Amino acid sequence: MSRPPEAMYSPNTLNTLIGQGVDAIDTPALVVDLDAMERNLQRMAQFAQQHRMRWRPHAKMHKSAQIGLMQMQAGAVGVCVQKTAEAEAMAAGGVNDIHISNEVIAPHKLARVVALARQLQSRGGRLGIAVDSEQGVQALADAVRAIGPAAATSSAPLIDVYVEVDVGHGRCGIPPAQAGALAQRVASHAGLRLAGLQAYQGRAQHLHSVQERRDAIAAAADAVAQARTAIEALGLPVPCVTGAGTGTMVHESATGAWHELQVGSFLFMDADYRRNERDAGQPPFEPALFVKSQVTGRYPQHAVCDAGHKSHAIDSGMPEVHWPAGLDYFSGGDEHGVLRVRSGGPANAGDSALPALPAIGDIVWLIPGHCDPTVNLHDAMIGVRGGLQVGVVERIIPVDARGALT
Amino acid sequence: MSRPPEAMYSPNTLNTLIGQGVDAIDTPALVVDLDAMERNLQRMAQFAQQHRMRWRPHAKMHKSAQIGLMQMQAGAVGVCVQKTAEAEAMAAGGVNDIHISNEVIAPHKLARVVALARQLQSRGGRLGIAVDSEQGVQALADAVRAIGPAAATSSAPLIDVYVEVDVGHGRCGIPPAQAGALAQRVASHAGLRLAGLQAYQGRAQHLHSVQERRDAIAAAADAVAQARTAIEALGLPVPCVTGAGTGTMVHESATGAWHELQVGSFLFMDADYRRNERDAGQPPFEPALFVKSQVTGRYPQHAVCDAGHKSHAIDSGMPEVHWPAGLDYFSGGDEHGVLRVRSGGPANAGDSALPALPAIGDIVWLIPGHCDPTVNLHDAMIGVRGGLQVGVVERIIPVDARGALT
Repeated sequence: MSRPPEAMYSPNTLNTLIGQGVDAIDTPALVVDLDAMERNLQRMAQFAQQHRMRWRPHAKMHKSAQIGLMQMQAGAVGVCVQKTAEAEAMAAGGVNDIHISNEVIAPHKLARVVALARQLQSRGGRLGIAVDSEQGVQALADAVRAIGPAAATSSAPLIDVYVEVDVGHGRCGIPPAQAGALAQRVASHAGLRLAGLQAYQGRAQHLHSVQERRDAIAAAADAVAQARTAIEALGLPVPCVTGAGTGTMVHESATGAWHELQVGSFLFMDADYRRNERDAGQPPFEPALFVKSQVTGRYPQHAVCDAGHKSHAIDSGMPEVHWPAGLDYFSGGDEHGVLRVRSGGPANAGDSALPALPAIGDIVWLIPGHCDPTVNLHDAMIGVRGGLQVGVVERIIPVDARGALT
Repeated sequence: MSRPPEAMYSPNTLNTLIGQGVDAIDTPALVVDLDAMERNLQRMAQFAQQHRMRWRPHAKMHKSAQIGLMQMQAGAVGVCVQKTAEAEAMAAGGVNDIHISNEVIAPHKLARVVALARQLQSRGGRLGIAVDSEQGVQALADAVRAIGPAAATSSAPLIDVYVEVDVGHGRCGIPPAQAGALAQRVASHAGLRLAGLQAYQGRAQHLHSVQERRDAIAAAADAVAQARTAIEALGLPVPCVTGAGTGTMVHESATGAWHELQVGSFLFMDADYRRNERDAGQPPFEPALFVKSQVTGRYPQHAVCDAGHKSHAIDSGMPEVHWPAGLDYFSGGDEHGVLRVRSGGPANAGDSALPALPAIGDIVWLIPGHCDPTVNLHDAMIGVRGGLQVGVVERIIPVDARGALT
């Protein structure tokens, strides 16, 4: 491979930053405010305890085994992932309880899923997975059977299987009325344990108003109840209903229909979630993930910084400018950000008391629009203790599952 | 580091695919149709020869030294990049003629730029860079001076410096009338060679109609002429005007104002460029970059595939479904794509002669909306010879500068 190690922003080269001030971080870079992250974590732990909910944070967001373990130390029962390769990365980093909240179909991937389930089981852990088709259940059961009878006895089924129900998202999942038949299929295979329902209303996460989100989750709870009834009518159990996200967790927790929260974004809070109207009872999660960027050009009505959408994802809108105050970020393409004074502010210092455009060389801190795909652009996050202005780099957090697509 | 090598889609593990059929490629994956790519390359070489233009393809698109060298073998004079770290990755992979078509401001980055310029010079190559401020010129000159007088003589200046002029993009660059003063600054430093103008109209690349693009480039040519006049009035030369992109190259080539084309996307052609009205005289570039994806769910009115926007960038719109015919792709979030039958088509096979929704397990080929940030999501591209249906994996193309942000 021709990759020059010194040129890359790899976790290893970043280790030299540890103990240095924030000023030493080259731009653009993905920076975690560790104090803010830990406060968010404690807020979530407290919320879950108060509402007697299990929580299984989504590692598709942070893709870091280090953070997954930290979440479990704070009380999380395990992590969720979306991809087999993400599950492998979490397991390799020491996470023992993993739920793939998604369908896996390809036989060669399911062979990996089964191998991982055996590995986790041997470490005292557990693997879960979602299914939403007879074909998917059959392929999973075949993969378990392929490793021999010992690993697939009904007294100790290898894999926790969650029937995914479409509760209004309109993407994956079967209609609630079909949950009984599919659950019966799962229960018919000795190697599979019917673990409950996967019920995630993804569309509701970003509905702006409290009322819209409450209504969407009330409808989702009805769908969950219908699916539960269909399964229980066949004499089968529904041990756990898992779902929810940061945007709606207050509502899922209030309905009593869910047991487990698959929250992800609460840890870092992105600009898109911050644009939602806040629920009463929602913990005051604060931004903890930032892109440090530098101004490389200053023009009469705008400035340009060195963070474009190869530094942060823009699928859910542009980043917020966290600091300095009074600026808005506009797309400047893959490698540039365009900064303008927020409507009403002056372009030049001295025009008024309002903030001016930054100068060449100035540092700008951005809050990404959407944390999940932003983290996936970086090989590592730089963890800072003591704030973004005068803090010190405490540790480098590798993005273990970066690019783990399969 | 905890990253499990077997779980990652790394260039090394992908090497085992070489010689196998397309079926062996796990999903989702970034696949290059090598035959199509080579045809595009030959079309570009022929176009440049016919129009007597130099061409310096933008490596920010492919981020691969292997492809950069291939382009130079086909007649390109070198490559462009946007970032110092990209330049380092290209140089490490053997590319000797590199132009950083962007402003670099930070002294520690400029020290790297200077080190790279010396390295390339010692290999018989050359480094160029853009400037658009007095501060930028001064910082660059300081960095050259810091390595000592030997490397900074006026008889053999170390770095080619291009004054960037805003020719209508509205992002970087100075107004044309100020080009003379800035060029004089450049020429005043022994270590810097005034190499010409950086003049890129990025906004014009994606204007839909031929007329809009022609008008925008006509205005840009006027700006170039004005800048040239301002510089020549001071007795200084403008050896090279560099700029243009795949969307407008016909127009820049027709005006006579440019010497060098910074085309990038022509090699792979993304869905966004394909939506443009085609210029007379534009070579018939064809799509050569694809995401291979698999259907993981089939529902009454849609199917779901395993490629979401962690597999391909959506900043310039959704991917096109290349195969099977008759489907449209809608966003399903980070890890899912939603496929629907194009308006007028049936949801189920047998309803008519039109194509139906694919079944679970079926393969779907996507043309990414925007190739540059899509390539940046992957550690490697899988090069296939003989077409996407029956072809064979010929080589793995590492994305050397993936995540090279600094």
